[in-house]
Amino acid sequence: MTKGIKIATIGGGSSYTPELVEGFIKRYDEFPVSELWLVDIEAGKEKLEIVGNFAKRMIEKAGLPIEVHLTLDRRAALKDADFVTTQFRVGLLDARATDESIPLKYGVLGQETNGPGGLFKGLRTIPVILDICKDMEELCPNAWLINFTNPAGMVTEAVLRYSNIKKVVGLCNVPIGMEMGIAKLLDVDHSRIRIDFAGLNHMVYGLDVYVDGESVKEEVIEKLSDPENSSFVKNIDGMGWEPEFIQSLYAITCPYHMYYYKSKEMLDKAIESSKTEGTRAEVVQQLENDLFELYKDENLNIKPPQLEERGGAYYSDAAVRLITSIYNDKRDIQPVNTMNRGAIASIPDESAVEISCVITKDGPIPLVMGDLPVAARGLVQQIKSFERIAAEAAVTGDYNKAVLALTINPLTPSDAIAKQIVDEMMEAHKDYLPQFFEKEVII
Amino acid sequence: MTKGIKIATIGGGSSYTPELVEGFIKRYDEFPVSELWLVDIEAGKEKLEIVGNFAKRMIEKAGLPIEVHLTLDRRAALKDADFVTTQFRVGLLDARATDESIPLKYGVLGQETNGPGGLFKGLRTIPVILDICKDMEELCPNAWLINFTNPAGMVTEAVLRYSNIKKVVGLCNVPIGMEMGIAKLLDVDHSRIRIDFAGLNHMVYGLDVYVDGESVKEEVIEKLSDPENSSFVKNIDGMGWEPEFIQSLYAITCPYHMYYYKSKEMLDKAIESSKTEGTRAEVVQQLENDLFELYKDENLNIKPPQLEERGGAYYSDAAVRLITSIYNDKRDIQPVNTMNRGAIASIPDESAVEISCVITKDGPIPLVMGDLPVAARGLVQQIKSFERIAAEAAVTGDYNKAVLALTINPLTPSDAIAKQIVDEMMEAHKDYLPQFFEKEVII
Amino acid sequence: MTKGIKIATIGGGSSYTPELVEGFIKRYDEFPVSELWLVDIEAGKEKLEIVGNFAKRMIEKAGLPIEVHLTLDRRAALKDADFVTTQFRVGLLDARATDESIPLKYGVLGQETNGPGGLFKGLRTIPVILDICKDMEELCPNAWLINFTNPAGMVTEAVLRYSNIKKVVGLCNVPIGMEMGIAKLLDVDHSRIRIDFAGLNHMVYGLDVYVDGESVKEEVIEKLSDPENSSFVKNIDGMGWEPEFIQSLYAITCPYHMYYYKSKEMLDKAIESSKTEGTRAEVVQQLENDLFELYKDENLNIKPPQLEERGGAYYSDAAVRLITSIYNDKRDIQPVNTMNRGAIASIPDESAVEISCVITKDGPIPLVMGDLPVAARGLVQQIKSFERIAAEAAVTGDYNKAVLALTINPLTPSDAIAKQIVDEMMEAHKDYLPQFFEKEVII
Amino acid sequence: MTKGIKIATIGGGSSYTPELVEGFIKRYDEFPVSELWLVDIEAGKEKLEIVGNFAKRMIEKAGLPIEVHLTLDRRAALKDADFVTTQFRVGLLDARATDESIPLKYGVLGQETNGPGGLFKGLRTIPVILDICKDMEELCPNAWLINFTNPAGMVTEAVLRYSNIKKVVGLCNVPIGMEMGIAKLLDVDHSRIRIDFAGLNHMVYGLDVYVDGESVKEEVIEKLSDPENSSFVKNIDGMGWEPEFIQSLYAITCPYHMYYYKSKEMLDKAIESSKTEGTRAEVVQQLENDLFELYKDENLNIKPPQLEERGGAYYSDAAVRLITSIYNDKRDIQPVNTMNRGAIASIPDESAVEISCVITKDGPIPLVMGDLPVAARGLVQQIKSFERIAAEAAVTGDYNKAVLALTINPLTPSDAIAKQIVDEMMEAHKDYLPQFFEKEVII
Repeated sequence: MTKGIKIATIGGGSSYTPELVEGFIKRYDEFPVSELWLVDIEAGKEKLEIVGNFAKRMIEKAGLPIEVHLTLDRRAALKDADFVTTQFRVGLLDARATDESIPLKYGVLGQETNGPGGLFKGLRTIPVILDICKDMEELCPNAWLINFTNPAGMVTEAVLRYSNIKKVVGLCNVPIGMEMGIAKLLDVDHSRIRIDFAGLNHMVYGLDVYVDGESVKEEVIEKLSDPENSSFVKNIDGMGWEPEFIQSLYAITCPYHMYYYKSKEMLDKAIESSKTEGTRAEVVQQLENDLFELYKDENLNIKPPQLEERGGAYYSDAAVRLITSIYNDKRDIQPVNTMNRGAIASIPDESAVEISCVITKDGPIPLVMGDLPVAARGLVQQIKSFERIAAEAAVTGDYNKAVLALTINPLTPSDAIAKQIVDEMMEAHKDYLPQFFEKEVII
Repeated sequence: MTKGIKIATIGGGSSYTPELVEGFIKRYDEFPVSELWLVDIEAGKEKLEIVGNFAKRMIEKAGLPIEVHLTLDRRAALKDADFVTTQFRVGLLDARATDESIPLKYGVLGQETNGPGGLFKGLRTIPVILDICKDMEELCPNAWLINFTNPAGMVTEAVLRYSNIKKVVGLCNVPIGMEMGIAKLLDVDHSRIRIDFAGLNHMVYGLDVYVDGESVKEEVIEKLSDPENSSFVKNIDGMGWEPEFIQSLYAITCPYHMYYYKSKEMLDKAIESSKTEGTRAEVVQQLENDLFELYKDENLNIKPPQLEERGGAYYSDAAVRLITSIYNDKRDIQPVNTMNRGAIASIPDESAVEISCVITKDGPIPLVMGDLPVAARGLVQQIKSFERIAAEAAVTGDYNKAVLALTINPLTPSDAIAKQIVDEMMEAHKDYLPQFFEKEVII
Repeated sequence: MTKGIKIATIGGGSSYTPELVEGFIKRYDEFPVSELWLVDIEAGKEKLEIVGNFAKRMIEKAGLPIEVHLTLDRRAALKDADFVTTQFRVGLLDARATDESIPLKYGVLGQETNGPGGLFKGLRTIPVILDICKDMEELCPNAWLINFTNPAGMVTEAVLRYSNIKKVVGLCNVPIGMEMGIAKLLDVDHSRIRIDFAGLNHMVYGLDVYVDGESVKEEVIEKLSDPENSSFVKNIDGMGWEPEFIQSLYAITCPYHMYYYKSKEMLDKAIESSKTEGTRAEVVQQLENDLFELYKDENLNIKPPQLEERGGAYYSDAAVRLITSIYNDKRDIQPVNTMNRGAIASIPDESAVEISCVITKDGPIPLVMGDLPVAARGLVQQIKSFERIAAEAAVTGDYNKAVLALTINPLTPSDAIAKQIVDEMMEAHKDYLPQFFEKEVII
Repeated sequence: MTKGIKIATIGGGSSYTPELVEGFIKRYDEFPVSELWLVDIEAGKEKLEIVGNFAKRMIEKAGLPIEVHLTLDRRAALKDADFVTTQFRVGLLDARATDESIPLKYGVLGQETNGPGGLFKGLRTIPVILDICKDMEELCPNAWLINFTNPAGMVTEAVLRYSNIKKVVGLCNVPIGMEMGIAKLLDVDHSRIRIDFAGLNHMVYGLDVYVDGESVKEEVIEKLSDPENSSFVKNIDGMGWEPEFIQSLYAITCPYHMYYYKSKEMLDKAIESSKTEGTRAEVVQQLENDLFELYKDENLNIKPPQLEERGGAYYSDAAVRLITSIYNDKRDIQPVNTMNRGAIASIPDESAVEISCVITKDGPIPLVMGDLPVAARGLVQQIKSFERIAAEAAVTGDYNKAVLALTINPLTPSDAIAKQIVDEMMEAHKDYLPQFFEKEVII
C-alpha cells in the first residue's frame, strides 16, 4: 500500500463522521490515510457538505496531508479503496421515527435494532449493503468492509451469507462501552480491562472480565447486583438487575439485554417517553439538528463535546482501532462481528457472532469461547434465528418470512400482532422496500 | 420374565388409572400383566381405594388373571417391578390451582407445564421422582421407569442428569393427539399416519407427516393455514395461526405452541376464564370429583366415556403401546422423551428430547432428525435452558436459580416480576419445597 | 404404482443376477415386479444373454407374470423405472486383476475396495454412476438408486456429493453376513439377531448385538476372542484376533477390518496366494466361467448352489429385503449406506455412512448411534477422508488428488510408493480413466 | 507476586537446563526470576550437580540475583512455586534405547514419541506427572505446569483428563522450529513469520503461513515441493515430499509427519542406522556425555554452541517466551498444547491439541482454526485415539488397553505384532511400570 491508504465512507454525511475523522487524525502515525472519500445520496447532500467541510477544517488544523473528497458518486469513492466504512441510514431519521412509533401502537417495542424496528431497518438496509458489496467486488475486491450500520448483526449475517465479499467486519460501540463502564465501575484505567466477549450484536455477554489479566468477574457481578451500577451506555437509562438474577446468570450483560430481561419495564418506559419527550428518533433528530448547526460554524475545527451525547460514544475509537490493527497486523484482541467458525458452540459455524478476536492483517480470528452459559443460549439462538430469517426476507422479498421473523422475535406477543405490525410498517416504508413490492429478487 | 409382569404405578389413585387398566386389558395377549400395584400417599388413600376397586371390577369383567394391589407402601410396590409408571401430583390439584392463580395476578400465564406453573410443578416433583429412582436402584434396578408426570420434559431431564436410572422414558399424549388430529383433518385412519417428531415435551414439532409413507406435509400445512383447523387436543381451545406464519414456519405445531406464538391471546383468555369459570385447575377439580363419583358406582366396570373429557385422551393408548413395544422388542416408531445423543443437532447430547424413536427391548433409539427449522431453534433452546436450570434449582434448592429459570422463560416479562412470582409461589408451596427451606441438598 | 413395478438393473449380465431374480420371485407377493430390465454394455452382451435367458427360465418355472427385458440401451431401461439397481464392473474382471497385481509389486495390498484397488475401481466407476444419475434425473426422477457396485462407500459418497439424485442407497452384503455369522456363532436363528451397525462400508462396526432384543455383546466378544471364531464371510480367510485386542476394542469387527488390524498378515497371504493360486481376481474369473457354463444349461431354472461360493452370499436377500421395505413402508431396521446427518458423531453430516436405519417409503432414516468407540474413530475418519479425496479425484481428474488419496490410505507405506503405484495403474487403466487423460471434467 | 518468581524444574539435571537458564537470563528484565529450583532423583544426582553448578556460573556471569537451588527433595522445590517445568526422563536414556531397539526387531519404528517408543515412554511418564500434579495441588495450587517431557501430547492429555491441575501447558520446540525453518526458506527474519498451527503434538500442521501478516502459503508449498527444502529440524534427516502429495495436501507439514507419510523410508533408515551408528538413543547418549564433559569445565559460563546439536534447539526460546507471556499477560500468539474446547472441529473439546493460542495471564486461549484439511483428519484422529487409550492404559494399568493402543497406532502392522512388542517391552521396562505389575491403580 505504498500508494497511501484510501478510505471510502458510505453515509459520509452522518453526524458521526467527525468522530471517525478525529480517529484518523489521532492515529495518523501508524495509519497514514491519504484519501478520505465521503459519499452520500442526493437527499443527504446538504449534510454531506456541512460535515465534509468541517472534516476538512479538522484535518487542516491537524496539519495532515489527508485529502477529503465529497461525492454523490459511490463508484468513484469505492474505486481502489483500501477500507470501506458504512454508516448510512436508509430513509434517514424519519424512517427511525416510523420504526419506533408504529409498533408502540400495538404495545410492542420498536427499537431500531430489536423487534419490529430492527426488522424493518434490516429489510431496508440489507439490499443496499449487498449492492455496495457487488460494487466492491468489481472496484476494490481487496478492500475491507467495516460496517457500522445497524442492525449490525443482521447486516453482517446477510453479507456473510448472500455476498461474495468475505473481508467484512461488523462493528459496534457496545462492547467498548461495556469495557469503559466496567473500568469506571472498578475505578481503573480502560486499558487495563479485558472482557471475554461472546454472543451476538446487541446481545453480547461478557463471559469473564480481567484487570491486568487477572479475573475480577466475581467482583464485577457483585457490583452489578447493586442496582445503582447496572447501566453502561448512555442511550439506555439505567435500571438495575434483580441481584438473584444477575448472580445466577453469572455473566456480564450488555445494555440491550434490558429489552429482553426487562421487557415490560422497557416497554412501559418507551410508551411513557413517547408521550412526554417523543420517540428516541425525535430526540435524536433534535440532537442531530443541533450538531449540524455546530458543524456549520466555520471556526469549529475540532470534534465538539456535544457529539458524545449523540449515543455514539467510542465509535471513533472502536473503528479506527480496528482498521489500524488490520493495517498493521497488530494481533491485539478486539470484539467484532465476524464469522463464528465454531468459536461459540451453540451457533452455526457460518453465522455472524460478536466475539473477542485477534485482529490480524488477514482479518479477525475468533478466540475459542466454548459454550455460552446455559441460561444465555436460548435467547441468543432466538435472536440469531430472527436475524437469519429477517435477512432471508430482505433478500427474497418474501412477505411471509417477514411475518415469521417478527413472530419469533421475543419482543412480539403473537403471530396476529406480528402480522398487523408488518402490514402497517410495510406500507409506511414502501418506498424503501422495493423487493416486497416490485417482486424483484436480489439473489 | 416367566414370573409374569409386575407393574408399579406411583400415583395410582389418579383419575387416569382406568385408562391404563383399560390399556392392559386390551393388550393382555401380547403383554400379560400378572400384578398391578397401585401406590399412593396417605392423602390420596380414599381416591386410591375408589379407583383401585374400580380397576379390580374392570379386570374381573375382562376375565383376566391380573392381581391388583392397593398400597401406601411404595417400596413394596417397587420390589422386583418390571415397569414403574409415575403419574402422581405433588400437592394434588390444590397446588395446580395455586400454580395457575398466583402468576395471573402478575399478568403472567401459569400453565402447569409452562411458565411459573411448570417451574413450580417441577420444583415439587423432581425431588420425589429422584427419590423413587433411588428406591428403584435398590429394589428393581432392571425396571423401566415410564414417567407421565408433568412437566414431563423437565422431569425426564432431571432423571437423566441427576439419577442413576438410565432406563427412563418420558411419555406424553400430545404427539399421539397430533397424529389423531391430523388423521381427522385428512379423514384417514390413525394407523396410516406417521409424523417425524422432534423437539421437547410440549414444544414438539412435526417436521414431516406421511400417509402410508408418502409425505402429505404440504397439504397439512395448507389445512393448518385455515384457522378452522388448527386445534388438535381438547384442553386448548382452538385459535388459528396466521396463514403467513404457519406457511413460512413450515412445520406442524403442537397445541402448546399457542402459549408462545400467541402469548397475548392465551393470557387474555386465561384472565377471562379465571373470572368466569375459574382456573383450569378448578375446572379439572370439578371434572375429577364427577369422575370419582362415577368410579364409586359398584356397577361400573368399564372406562366411562367422561374420562376422555379430562384431557388425558390417548394416554392409555400411548402408555401401553410403549410398554408393550419395549417388552416385545417391537421396533416400531413412537414419539417419546429420551436422551438426545445427537439426534437433534442444536440440543445437547445428554438432554431429554421428545422425538420419534424405534422402540426396542433395550429402550428407545432416536431417529436422526438433523437440524430443527431455523425458526424453531431459538424457542426450543430457550425452553431447554429453562428446563435445565429449573431442574438444577430443584435438586440444589438454589433460590437464585429458580429466579433465573423463571426470568429466561419466554412467558415472563422481566426479572423483577419473576422474582415477585417466585417469592409468592415459594411461600404458597412451602410444604412441598423442603429443599429451599431446609437447605437439604438432594445430590 | 398401479402400473406395476419396473426394475432396471445396470450390469445385468453379472453372475449375481440370478440371486436378485431369486429374491424377486420369493417376495413377489409383497413386491410384485412387472418388468425387469437387464442392461449391459456391448462387451457384456454374451453374458447378458446367458444370464438373461436363465432369469427368464427361473421366472417361468415360478409361474410369475414378470417380463424380463435384455438390452444394451440404458436409457430405454431407465425410462419410468421405479428402482434402479447397479452392479456393473467397469473394465470387467481384467481390471480387477490389474487392481490386485500391480500394487503387490510394490508390496502393497490392492484389494478392490481398499488401498490402490479400491481407489482405481472408484476412479473408473464414479464417472459412470454419475452419468447414470444424470439419465435418471431425466428419465426416472422419482426412482430409487440402489447401488451394489464396489467400492460402495466411495460410490455412495460421490453420488451424495456430486449428483442431484438424493434417493440413493448403497448396499453391501457384509452386515448381513455378520448377522449370519453371529447367528451361527451363537447357534440361533438369523431372524433373532439385531446388530447396531455404525461405520463405513467395509469398515463397519457392530456397536452392540442382541438376541430377541437382549444384548449378548459380552458373550459375542468372548467368542470372538477365541481365534477359531473370527471369520464371518467366505471371501476372507479366517485369522483370529488377539484376545487382548478384541476385548479392549469391545466392538464387533467386520471381515475387512483384517486389512487394517492385520495388514502384515493379509499382505503376506496375498503375496503367497498370488504365487500359488493367482490373485483373487483370477480365482473369481474361474468361478465366474464355471457359473456361466452352468447358466447356459437350458434345464437349469433355479439358482445353483455354486453361486454362493462366489462371495456374494446374501446379496439377494439384502437387496430385495431393502427394496421391499421401501416399497411397502415397512419401517424395519436394516444396515445400509446413506447420508449421516449427525447419526455418527465424528463423521461429517453430509457424508455416506453404513449404519442401521429404519427403512421407510421415504427412504432410510439412520438410528442415532452416538460416538464411535475411541479406538475406532481414527481409522474410520481416515477411510472417510480417503473416500472423499478419491471421489474428488474421480470427478475432477486431478492427478495430484489421486496421489494424495492413496498416500493417506492406511495400507500405503509412503507418498513415493503411492506415486509409483498411481503412475503404473493410471497407465494400465488408461482406457477407463478419460477424466485424467482427456482433461474433461465431470462436474 | 511481589515476593519474586520461583521456578521449580523437575528433571533439572537434564542437559537442556542451560538452555532454560539462558532464557531466564535473557528475559530477566520482563521476567525477574528470584529462585530457580533444579530437582532430580538419586540416579541423576551427579548430572544435577554438574549442570547446576554450570547454571550458577552462567547466572553469576550475567550478574543477576537469581538463587539456584539443587535438590532431590521435590516437595521442597514445589512449595509455593509460581511455575513448574518438567523435563524429566523416566528410566533415563537407557530406557530410550530400549524403546527404540525392541520394536525394530519386529520391523516397527520405535521413535520415542511415536509408535511403541511413544507408547512406553507415556506409560512410564504419566504416573509420575500425575504424582507431581497431586503434589502441586497441595504445595502450589496456583502454579502453572509447563511440560516439556515427551510424548508431550499424550502427557498433556493425561493431565487434562486425570488430574485436578487445570493450569497446564504442553510445550514442544517443533512449531518454533517450523517457523525458523520457513523463515530460512523464505530468507526473512523469524519475527516476521506467523503460522496458523493446528493439530497434535508431533502431528501439527501449518494451515496458513504469513510474512508480516500477508499469506505466503502458496510460495511455501511451492518451495516444499522442491525435495531440497523439506527438512526443518535437525533430528530428522531431510527427505523431500513427492510434489503431487504436498501440493494437494496443501498444508505445512511438521518433521514428524515423515513417520506417517514416509513410513517405509523412515523404517529402512532406522534399521540402517541402528546397524551403523546405533539407535538415536545411543547417538544422543554420546552427545550428552560430551555435553556434560563441557559443563564440568569451571571456566564455562555461557551456553556452549554444541548444545544446539542435541536436537533441542529453540527450547529455551519457546519455553521462556511462553512463561514470560503468561506472567506479563502479553496476549501474543504462540503454539502450545492445551485443551481444544472446539478450536479444531474434528477433535473432542476436552482433548489436548497443539494450536496457535493467545497467551494471557489466565493461560492460552486457542484461536479458532475450523476444520482440518480433509486429508489430515484421519491421521490426527488416529493419533488422538492412540494418545487417549495409551493414557488410559497408563493410569489404569490395563494391559489389554496397551495392546489396543499399539494396534491402532498407524506404525503398527498388526494386532499380533503389537502384542509381541508390548510383551517384550513391558518386561524390559518392568521397573518403571508398577501399575501393570503391582495392579495398583492411579485414579
